Amino acid sequence: MAPKVSAEYMRERRGEILDAATKVFSQKGFHVATLDDISTEADVSKGSIYIHFESKEAMIDGLSQLWQTIDDEVFETAETMPRAIDGVAHVVKATIRRSQRADFKDSIRLGMFVWAEVLINPAVRKSQSKLGEEWARRFTALVQSARDQGGIGPAYSTDSVISFLGSLGGGYFLSRGVWDANPDLADAEKLVDSFIEGLSQG
Amino acid sequence: MAPKVSAEYMRERRGEILDAATKVFSQKGFHVATLDDISTEADVSKGSIYIHFESKEAMIDGLSQLWQTIDDEVFETAETMPRAIDGVAHVVKATIRRSQRADFKDSIRLGMFVWAEVLINPAVRKSQSKLGEEWARRFTALVQSARDQGGIGPAYSTDSVISFLGSLGGGYFLSRGVWDANPDLADAEKLVDSFIEGLSQG
Repeated sequence: MAPKVSAEYMRERRGEILDAATKVFSQKGFHVATLDDISTEADVSKGSIYIHFESKEAMIDGLSQLWQTIDDEVFETAETMPRAIDGVAHVVKATIRRSQRADFKDSIRLGMFVWAEVLINPAVRKSQSKLGEEWARRFTALVQSARDQGGIGPAYSTDSVISFLGSLGGGYFLSRGVWDANPDLADAEKLVDSFIEGLSQG
Repeated sequence: MAPKVSAEYMRERRGEILDAATKVFSQKGFHVATLDDISTEADVSKGSIYIHFESKEAMIDGLSQLWQTIDDEVFETAETMPRAIDGVAHVVKATIRRSQRADFKDSIRLGMFVWAEVLINPAVRKSQSKLGEEWARRFTALVQSARDQGGIGPAYSTDSVISFLGSLGGGYFLSRGVWDANPDLADAEKLVDSFIEGLSQG
């Protein structure tokens, strides 16, 4: 019994530290935040933190794995849709909806610091590239299927559609993260549908 | 004669310091970069820098004024177009094109750090809010005119169209800034046109 309880305990502590890290990073920024701040917020000793994470970068890596599971769920739903173009729309709408989730606000603010950190910190760049490449791989497959089914006309290249929709989703995250923009979600989804409908005629 | 030459000399030094700041910030990030780094890059003494800028924040404010003149030019062209919807398209396409300009790459990288800094630094937030509010004011007027002329149907609110197109533009900046994405500009413009054409039918 003992090792099982211990593993669960470890998993819980790890989760609590990542929650504390999200809160501290989102308030102070990746650079200003210290492991001391995070140990205070999580109410665990700095030594205990080191058992789970050797650095702030390792925490971003841990958070990226959680974000990956959210992406995975979105793609799993999208990939079961009979019309791949509906799957494409689902991914974009899920991104926009996620940008507005109240319980995800700290993560989105943190995301702004992480994107900046990608530019100067190889460890952060590595975890974010992994996340980005997995997203691109699955989204490309969906867009390609949508094209094969006639949901996207020949006028628009797969890469261009991915750039457009990826930028759109990232941009909603950006406006929420930096400016706390609060768009009408139903309207945003209608606009995505209108755009995606137009793709079949291109 | 003397004061005139001196004013021009001051303006040139100021411009050189801002160029150096852009380069240093874009390579090291806003937090890691120091005034020493910038004085080395600009090849002027730290004392000379203080004549022009009292802080890194004051440099971001100075750069924001330059970015404002670029926005102003884009809007001046857009606002002279007989069909306001063409003006809306012009602003979005100009944003996307600007995100890809080779001579603007350091500024775009710097922009990622500035967006993160907005969240924790009131002085940076102030200069960026001013820029953002002026952009929103002029873009809202264009979208409103396009609606009055029938270029945007009643199904889509002005705010939603602004959120969508603002996010799209910001997102192209983001993907260039963080990931150095390099989309096909002609295709991106075709997709913007397709989306905007759909708005009249909403």
